[in-house]
Amino acid sequence: MKARVLIRPKDGILDPQGQAVERALPALGFGGAANVRVGRLVELDVEDGSRLDEMCERLLANPLIEDYEVQVIE
Amino acid sequence: MKARVLIRPKDGILDPQGQAVERALPALGFGGAANVRVGRLVELDVEDGSRLDEMCERLLANPLIEDYEVQVIE
Repeated sequence: MKARVLIRPKDGILDPQGQAVERALPALGFGGAANVRVGRLVELDVEDGSRLDEMCERLLANPLIEDYEVQVIE
Repeated sequence: MKARVLIRPKDGILDPQGQAVERALPALGFGGAANVRVGRLVELDVEDGSRLDEMCERLLANPLIEDYEVQVIE
């Protein structure tokens, strides 16, 4: 199966990349953007989808400062 | 509106983060993972969703080496 993991900084955790994007957008003429958060995207094929949460906890995300969401693509 | 942008290395472009994850998984006891690709996730609120592609081309992604996909969340 093909899976996608969305990894985001937790609410309240500083997101310097998101802040940088949010400041850069108006400078490039894109007004009206807010609440920009930058995270990571991991896509992979796995044989056993039941272990994806465990993979996230142990390797893909840092559960102290990041939330993750697993999506099964196909 | 709330939008999500998925940014991935293009096919054929080296993905060292993906390779590192792919090598680390078996070492942690997770067999059977393949084709791991690591990209970026950007979520933001925008007033004008019609300019999201342009934002990706100009700031969020590097169109030379990355593909992007815009999703409208709400």
